[in-house]
Amino acid sequence: MERYDIAIIGTGPAGISAAITATIRNKNIVLLGSRNFSEKIEKAHLIENYPGLPDISGEDMADAFRKHLEHLNIEITEEKVKAVYNMGEYFAIQGADAIYESSAVIISTGVNFGRLLPGEKELLGHGVSYCATCDAPLYKNKTAIVVGYYSEAGKEAEFLAEIADRVYYLPAYKNGNDKLKGENIDIISGIPKEVTQCDDGKVKLVAGENEYMADGIFILRDRISPEQLMQELKLDGNHIAVDLQMRTSVEGCFACGDIAGKPYQYIKAAGQGNVAALSAVEYLNS
Amino acid sequence: MERYDIAIIGTGPAGISAAITATIRNKNIVLLGSRNFSEKIEKAHLIENYPGLPDISGEDMADAFRKHLEHLNIEITEEKVKAVYNMGEYFAIQGADAIYESSAVIISTGVNFGRLLPGEKELLGHGVSYCATCDAPLYKNKTAIVVGYYSEAGKEAEFLAEIADRVYYLPAYKNGNDKLKGENIDIISGIPKEVTQCDDGKVKLVAGENEYMADGIFILRDRISPEQLMQELKLDGNHIAVDLQMRTSVEGCFACGDIAGKPYQYIKAAGQGNVAALSAVEYLNS
Repeated sequence: MERYDIAIIGTGPAGISAAITATIRNKNIVLLGSRNFSEKIEKAHLIENYPGLPDISGEDMADAFRKHLEHLNIEITEEKVKAVYNMGEYFAIQGADAIYESSAVIISTGVNFGRLLPGEKELLGHGVSYCATCDAPLYKNKTAIVVGYYSEAGKEAEFLAEIADRVYYLPAYKNGNDKLKGENIDIISGIPKEVTQCDDGKVKLVAGENEYMADGIFILRDRISPEQLMQELKLDGNHIAVDLQMRTSVEGCFACGDIAGKPYQYIKAAGQGNVAALSAVEYLNS
Repeated sequence: MERYDIAIIGTGPAGISAAITATIRNKNIVLLGSRNFSEKIEKAHLIENYPGLPDISGEDMADAFRKHLEHLNIEITEEKVKAVYNMGEYFAIQGADAIYESSAVIISTGVNFGRLLPGEKELLGHGVSYCATCDAPLYKNKTAIVVGYYSEAGKEAEFLAEIADRVYYLPAYKNGNDKLKGENIDIISGIPKEVTQCDDGKVKLVAGENEYMADGIFILRDRISPEQLMQELKLDGNHIAVDLQMRTSVEGCFACGDIAGKPYQYIKAAGQGNVAALSAVEYLNS
């Protein structure tokens, strides 16, 4: 497997800036995220305070970033990262369909990850999973609930249904009355409220007035919280704790942008991405 | 005297970014520095890693910043700040010819301030001064040495000569064989090496092989070090110590850009300027 110098997770202004600076510093990078960048960029009406680009629309900002990436031949690998594992000498990054290896990692995944469900954190690894691709094999002849917070989550439910006995899919997003492929998929409903463990080891999802039971539950969010991403990371409230050089509590792991703290601003994120990249370069060279 | 909400000292990317964000947040600011921005901007050949502006020359970057400032009707007040005094409720900012008052202050003066001369720090306020405009009245019927590290420093020597008995002017810059107006100005020479105090209370400047004595010495640099600017600021090496919100050890005083630490990068400076401005806004509103 190719071992990248730096894996950059997230394609908002922080991740893009980190990718640009790391590439200019001749590092072999993989930039993981959405080719449409972050929602925050595309949906912005007007950004007034990005020095040098006065009164720019989110769309034009995205165009400017896209051109900059193209100019440096930087490609975005379309990927939803599920987890980052610290392997000591390197990091293993679990995507929806693939694993990536890198010597250093920069986390710039933004903050729109929503709140965890009550019980979710406690049951992680004991009935709660974030990655259908990774954990599907455990569900042969078993039942699973999938709570999808974004429409592409349905695909993970379909994949899971190829292996599991039965899959209950709860589309927890707007207009989420999806039809999925698979005879053994039931679409369920209700606003997800809580996950608990039953006496027989099964898990129970409370969703609105309904309760569903299964051998396990997959909770699939568009963005995931730092504690989901890498459990050993030291946090500062909801953010990853960083120093001025964007170093986290894990050696070789850097964070920048919204996930590294307020204010949530494009130019601040871009500045921190630059710093994170240079700190990663220094780490690699040391 | 007008009391500004925020005084921003320095017109590099950090100061410009701070001015833009503070203005958008409806604060009444004064932006003090050079209308030509920082040398670092104008003289850059090519900036490759300012996201959204690929491969931009220093000149074009300066143009882009200038347009952004014009768009928001932000004016630069041409000024060389000599000192910032913490008055408790506000800050008094000593320029070459004027004093400004502000409720909060953002320092973004860059790092090209050179080393202090041996003896300079110890004799500050006891024969060493940084501001001819401020301290000239003390030199009536006395003699003074002026060491100028930039050509405009000659004007301060001329002003001083209107009051002092005799002024020795040492132009410590390239092609610095200035002719100054004033019968009582002697141009002296030699590379400045040390300042010491004599037994009779006079100060002695060692410059190359020469020694000059006078009642006081003015050391005028293009940019001044943080300890010259505001003595009570906590430093981190050569930089002003800041936290992630760009707060310094002095309440209401923020720092950003190169003066706040490495790496010395445009986009990092611009990002920090934004954060400093928002922190200043928060300080003002609290």
